[in-house]
Amino acid sequence: MFYHVKELQYRAKPERPDPIYAKKLQEILGGQFGEISVALQYLFQGWNTRGDGKYRDLLMDTGAEEIAHVEMLATMIARLLNDAPVNAQEQAAKDPVIGAVMGGMNPQHAIVSGLGSMPVDSVGNPWTASYINASGNLLADMRMNLTYESQGRLQAVRLYEIAEDRGVKDMLSWLIARDTMHQNQWLAAIAELEAKENVVVPSTFPRELEKQEVSYTLFNYSAGNESAKGRWAYGPSMDGCGVFNYVENPVPFGKKPKLKPAPKWVHDTPLNVLRTSDVHPDPDTK
Amino acid sequence: MFYHVKELQYRAKPERPDPIYAKKLQEILGGQFGEISVALQYLFQGWNTRGDGKYRDLLMDTGAEEIAHVEMLATMIARLLNDAPVNAQEQAAKDPVIGAVMGGMNPQHAIVSGLGSMPVDSVGNPWTASYINASGNLLADMRMNLTYESQGRLQAVRLYEIAEDRGVKDMLSWLIARDTMHQNQWLAAIAELEAKENVVVPSTFPRELEKQEVSYTLFNYSAGNESAKGRWAYGPSMDGCGVFNYVENPVPFGKKPKLKPAPKWVHDTPLNVLRTSDVHPDPDTK
Amino acid sequence: MFYHVKELQYRAKPERPDPIYAKKLQEILGGQFGEISVALQYLFQGWNTRGDGKYRDLLMDTGAEEIAHVEMLATMIARLLNDAPVNAQEQAAKDPVIGAVMGGMNPQHAIVSGLGSMPVDSVGNPWTASYINASGNLLADMRMNLTYESQGRLQAVRLYEIAEDRGVKDMLSWLIARDTMHQNQWLAAIAELEAKENVVVPSTFPRELEKQEVSYTLFNYSAGNESAKGRWAYGPSMDGCGVFNYVENPVPFGKKPKLKPAPKWVHDTPLNVLRTSDVHPDPDTK
Amino acid sequence: MFYHVKELQYRAKPERPDPIYAKKLQEILGGQFGEISVALQYLFQGWNTRGDGKYRDLLMDTGAEEIAHVEMLATMIARLLNDAPVNAQEQAAKDPVIGAVMGGMNPQHAIVSGLGSMPVDSVGNPWTASYINASGNLLADMRMNLTYESQGRLQAVRLYEIAEDRGVKDMLSWLIARDTMHQNQWLAAIAELEAKENVVVPSTFPRELEKQEVSYTLFNYSAGNESAKGRWAYGPSMDGCGVFNYVENPVPFGKKPKLKPAPKWVHDTPLNVLRTSDVHPDPDTK
Amino acid sequence: MFYHVKELQYRAKPERPDPIYAKKLQEILGGQFGEISVALQYLFQGWNTRGDGKYRDLLMDTGAEEIAHVEMLATMIARLLNDAPVNAQEQAAKDPVIGAVMGGMNPQHAIVSGLGSMPVDSVGNPWTASYINASGNLLADMRMNLTYESQGRLQAVRLYEIAEDRGVKDMLSWLIARDTMHQNQWLAAIAELEAKENVVVPSTFPRELEKQEVSYTLFNYSAGNESAKGRWAYGPSMDGCGVFNYVENPVPFGKKPKLKPAPKWVHDTPLNVLRTSDVHPDPDTK
Amino acid sequence: MFYHVKELQYRAKPERPDPIYAKKLQEILGGQFGEISVALQYLFQGWNTRGDGKYRDLLMDTGAEEIAHVEMLATMIARLLNDAPVNAQEQAAKDPVIGAVMGGMNPQHAIVSGLGSMPVDSVGNPWTASYINASGNLLADMRMNLTYESQGRLQAVRLYEIAEDRGVKDMLSWLIARDTMHQNQWLAAIAELEAKENVVVPSTFPRELEKQEVSYTLFNYSAGNESAKGRWAYGPSMDGCGVFNYVENPVPFGKKPKLKPAPKWVHDTPLNVLRTSDVHPDPDTK
Repeated sequence: MFYHVKELQYRAKPERPDPIYAKKLQEILGGQFGEISVALQYLFQGWNTRGDGKYRDLLMDTGAEEIAHVEMLATMIARLLNDAPVNAQEQAAKDPVIGAVMGGMNPQHAIVSGLGSMPVDSVGNPWTASYINASGNLLADMRMNLTYESQGRLQAVRLYEIAEDRGVKDMLSWLIARDTMHQNQWLAAIAELEAKENVVVPSTFPRELEKQEVSYTLFNYSAGNESAKGRWAYGPSMDGCGVFNYVENPVPFGKKPKLKPAPKWVHDTPLNVLRTSDVHPDPDTK
Repeated sequence: MFYHVKELQYRAKPERPDPIYAKKLQEILGGQFGEISVALQYLFQGWNTRGDGKYRDLLMDTGAEEIAHVEMLATMIARLLNDAPVNAQEQAAKDPVIGAVMGGMNPQHAIVSGLGSMPVDSVGNPWTASYINASGNLLADMRMNLTYESQGRLQAVRLYEIAEDRGVKDMLSWLIARDTMHQNQWLAAIAELEAKENVVVPSTFPRELEKQEVSYTLFNYSAGNESAKGRWAYGPSMDGCGVFNYVENPVPFGKKPKLKPAPKWVHDTPLNVLRTSDVHPDPDTK
Repeated sequence: MFYHVKELQYRAKPERPDPIYAKKLQEILGGQFGEISVALQYLFQGWNTRGDGKYRDLLMDTGAEEIAHVEMLATMIARLLNDAPVNAQEQAAKDPVIGAVMGGMNPQHAIVSGLGSMPVDSVGNPWTASYINASGNLLADMRMNLTYESQGRLQAVRLYEIAEDRGVKDMLSWLIARDTMHQNQWLAAIAELEAKENVVVPSTFPRELEKQEVSYTLFNYSAGNESAKGRWAYGPSMDGCGVFNYVENPVPFGKKPKLKPAPKWVHDTPLNVLRTSDVHPDPDTK
Repeated sequence: MFYHVKELQYRAKPERPDPIYAKKLQEILGGQFGEISVALQYLFQGWNTRGDGKYRDLLMDTGAEEIAHVEMLATMIARLLNDAPVNAQEQAAKDPVIGAVMGGMNPQHAIVSGLGSMPVDSVGNPWTASYINASGNLLADMRMNLTYESQGRLQAVRLYEIAEDRGVKDMLSWLIARDTMHQNQWLAAIAELEAKENVVVPSTFPRELEKQEVSYTLFNYSAGNESAKGRWAYGPSMDGCGVFNYVENPVPFGKKPKLKPAPKWVHDTPLNVLRTSDVHPDPDTK
Repeated sequence: MFYHVKELQYRAKPERPDPIYAKKLQEILGGQFGEISVALQYLFQGWNTRGDGKYRDLLMDTGAEEIAHVEMLATMIARLLNDAPVNAQEQAAKDPVIGAVMGGMNPQHAIVSGLGSMPVDSVGNPWTASYINASGNLLADMRMNLTYESQGRLQAVRLYEIAEDRGVKDMLSWLIARDTMHQNQWLAAIAELEAKENVVVPSTFPRELEKQEVSYTLFNYSAGNESAKGRWAYGPSMDGCGVFNYVENPVPFGKKPKLKPAPKWVHDTPLNVLRTSDVHPDPDTK
Repeated sequence: MFYHVKELQYRAKPERPDPIYAKKLQEILGGQFGEISVALQYLFQGWNTRGDGKYRDLLMDTGAEEIAHVEMLATMIARLLNDAPVNAQEQAAKDPVIGAVMGGMNPQHAIVSGLGSMPVDSVGNPWTASYINASGNLLADMRMNLTYESQGRLQAVRLYEIAEDRGVKDMLSWLIARDTMHQNQWLAAIAELEAKENVVVPSTFPRELEKQEVSYTLFNYSAGNESAKGRWAYGPSMDGCGVFNYVENPVPFGKKPKLKPAPKWVHDTPLNVLRTSDVHPDPDTK
């Protein structure tokens, strides 16, 4: 169950409105790696954790914090949209800078949300649950979480760099710091789990059931062999269970596939048509 | 540029058709963590790498291999769909097991693809590029790649467990082994990059620009403090630049937000309506 | 900012597992009118409310409650998935009922979420933010909220009817009661706003700017005139500002549109081709 | 069955082309609350009405009218795109206002549709059937229809406010008037149905099957109690069947959920790993 | 503008309900090549036709007919859903055939639409406007239309083959016949346009602006040369403007791409990290 | 199985960066008819071909080529994004042309991909597999392929027209030439298949099972009869099996549908409510 307090986790107040920047800032609210993604991903992972304890608690703590970040961004975006001018062309005729600004605004901020934030990314794609996952395997999920905090902090930093407003930068410096913590905490959880389980997910699948002869092989499927120069091509594998090897000219292990004709009711191209076409006079022998 | 050879990387032949399993196997072809996702993700990351060298090459090698995995799964699914019965109810009347099987088949395998595989997941959602990313930052992207191989191997293992066909299990044991390698190789690349860059992405953002006072703080936003028991709550942080600390009863740092009224042209609820409503006689004082 | 308490708002415990029902129950978790929709819709409406006060508070209260409902459903679904059998066909061979059950399970509950709930609907479509809105106009939004509680309660009632498990029915009877309250509360808010603003949204647009001659006209665009029998066809309009009238045989007010040719750089079908085709010998005059 | 007449319901002719406005106007053609949404929603509701009569007829009448509105908007947008300049930068170099205009045009209007309208919204999201519904319950559906006409009229009014072209404003004044009628007609239908069924949807579910003790309770899940000041917190409920009450400090009714471990074949995090982690030495006692 | 008549274009009455078949039949209502797709595609192409005349008229005629087909399918599906049993497991316990049937029903037909049809395909994906197009170039669009009628008739035929109900087959035999006509009519339009414009779309782009040396070349990018046996590899090209030629061992015409480093503000992987990694001791020289 | 060579099929180097054009060029990379669509469509059609031979080989050849086109476009877009300016407003203040340019850039090119290409279209919609199909029927699929090359070449030509950079035009002239070939090759395959199968897809469905009386009939569903002037209205049908005929005033063949009431558990509007409403006093008789 959840309680809301009306104060923000951290302040979210720009120096002045800026509807173009509002559009861009949507990326870390409603984009692939935005705050809605991490909030719902951590909550679902917490709810799906089969077993009590500190991992579930950590996920719920962080999920609850991320909703507070959605709230901060929603507030900031609404404020960046204050006083948006009505009419782009009229303004543009007077002042080309304003014209450029209006041309770059998200029109739905005016027409759809009435100068409020929206659960969309910086080009207007609605947030979708196909961004996230909760698999029941904590090591897999913690790696996903680390990924989201890494991509998310990267985006927040880019937004910091292209911002000029000190209020915006102030709020972003908070979010960036929290992403530092969240990367650190998922790294800590991963370290703990890897220490107990080794590094390959899932750790519980019997090794003898996989084709172990290719479990540590790098196949070089592109001309040239620069990929041979990496740590991944020679020496002990990262899981300590094998030795990396490099195959410079990989060949197929399987055969050319030949599929059975479809039953008649499917009305695929009939075999006699396919076959006739195969006996089309060979140009080389004409 | 790409060349195709007609042989498969590894064999993809079931002992017998099984249209329900074909539907499930779609998950690792066209699902969130399926082979289309990794193929296109690695290729886009390779193409976007600004600078030549071993990382770009490794990404292209692995991307090319993943298209071969799409090919193996497409072949296997087409063969699992061989001879699918026409008519579910007729069959069900004769044999409830066949009836159950037909009820669980993906109807599009019959109606849309004519007994071929499709770029969809196990419930029929079409593959979407919103699953993937190529950010230009290799450490962020390698973590995403490790995530995809972790979730992907987990799904392949689950599909192995619910399979009975030896041909299917044979092919999955190949894909699972390759996922072992791919987890190992991305771990190796990550280890190399972290050694040069430290662990927080992006490593190039000046630390003094973030609110460092909360860069290593765990806020306990849920009742109870089981989350205090983890490695993430005390001791040196994973990046070696700070010390974790735990705030049991976090309070807001910001104020209650109050948004300015919208301009008249937006036709939001007018302020006098909002205000009148605020002076609605308080039931406690009536 | 949000706090989580570990206890559920209301209990969510089935008598026994039922993976098919788990699939169906997803509808009111992650479907169009499910709990994720109402949670995020109310929160965004609250955050976008320009002006403080009771409406914003009510929206935040209810939004926070709806996340607790997501939590209850997530818990219930995970428990309905306990002990799901591994292998459909093997089971089906032994027991056709189990076979039928397994055929009807959402395969992603096994392969993707590891027997956890997912942010998807009952056929597996991921939740999307295109379901929801926060317009800045409270009367418009309260009507949307009433709609969501109406459709949502209808779906919960249908799920109650097709449930047999007493634990499931117990939880649904709670959610249905809450939907009763939420319909009542949005009706109360609507009544209050309509009393101040009249019933047409937005109320602030000057009436003289719309084509008032058709503001209360029902055009009968289908053969037959059963639609003339409704309250909407005669008598004073609902907003008290006009009189309904019924046009049995409506005619067009506009002309046949004729579009200008496209500029050459667009490479639409060239006009001479279109025109030549127009002078194709008329079959009647040949 | 449907017949088309070539004349428009009302004229759709701008004074002059304006490709940026064309992009914005797409919102009420192909957006969430645009004319495609209402057209298909009313038609599906009509087709699904089980029983003949005036409601079905009204839905079909209005659905047919909405296709005519799609036609008017499609025509208007094509005309707003007449003579779009070829080359943004060249123009921008000469005239920054034109440059700003071109930068704000939807590039697909040039590249994809050849200066025609598209079934997309103002940021280019394709229309999706996940916007709409037809539930079989008329009161639920009429509320959805009222919602769509409320949000739709709001958007049309905002587009009117940011328009300058008299032809555009003329057409919008028609559509706004029709939305006035459509809000009035759905309000009339709702009034009729509520008079027969009472206000809670669905009206046919036995009241004794819901947890009536919370059917009229407002739980205050956020700090502060401004929400207590509304009509929804005290007095008789809107359905006349209960009395609103307000719970200032709601507590959980359920227990802390504890989920059973997953079966082994799922390869979730094994319980011993979870447990070991739970006995991680408590930092406070070290 | 559109008028509706209440009678169906052709009868749509099954002999008896069949909720599984109802689910499958959704494919040609709301799937990629279903009736909603063709209805909206033809209407948008008609509305976007710049120039009056027979093509626009033909598109509007056929678009209007396709809405009538949506109506027939919606009616048929509602009737196939009549009397759907409430409870799958209860039924399954009594009768495994009914159990299998219920397990294969679309749960949204019960929970969401109340036994009505939906604008979705046979696995429940909502219809999306990303299926369709209207490009302004009639030859391109007529080919798209021919494609949709070809794929659509193929699906209708497959549905005919797996149907047993004489009422369903009767209706499908009508739709299949109409698809025969529509393929014929688009073929006729294509023949007319190709006669005037030649076969390559768009016909108006100056040939000298394309790299004519590869305008008729088949590059053999896969091992083996079976593709050399087709009409496309030798002889005059289909547009009569060139001669097909076959390159058995194609080589790249471009160079290995090398991208410039990103500016610092982007925080891509820094060049020194990339470079250091490139001088990782070459395993061959160790 | 696939091999990658590092050289590009053809050069992809602009004269200078242009981030707005980069955004537009995304259309033919990740849009509906872009290179990802054709690459995956041809590969899936090849993999699903049931039978060996030249068609499968041709599809694989062309699919492999199209991945090389994705690679060229990805490279070109990354180069068009070189040195993108950081800050739109700062630049705009100095130089309105640069300001206009920045306002029109895709913000995700800066924030998400770090100045790399993305698998999205020109407005930012992620590529989706719902664009493509592989039906198992080659004639249906070859028509789809011809459609994609027709629409794709049209879009490439439009992009050529609005380009100014000679490097961009050079690359587009290559892609346009390849589209010329691909239209020609699919036309050749279609000609071959139609010669063997006749023109209506699928050719294998017995003619006597369709309602032949309407297989060659054009129903005129719109007022006016311009559509009668086409080749499709009179004379022998294109398949040579019938004679086109034109019905100027088509009437319904079916009856007015009347649906049975839903079972009680569905909680649709109860019949007595519907009925009562039908006996609402007729205004004409009051």
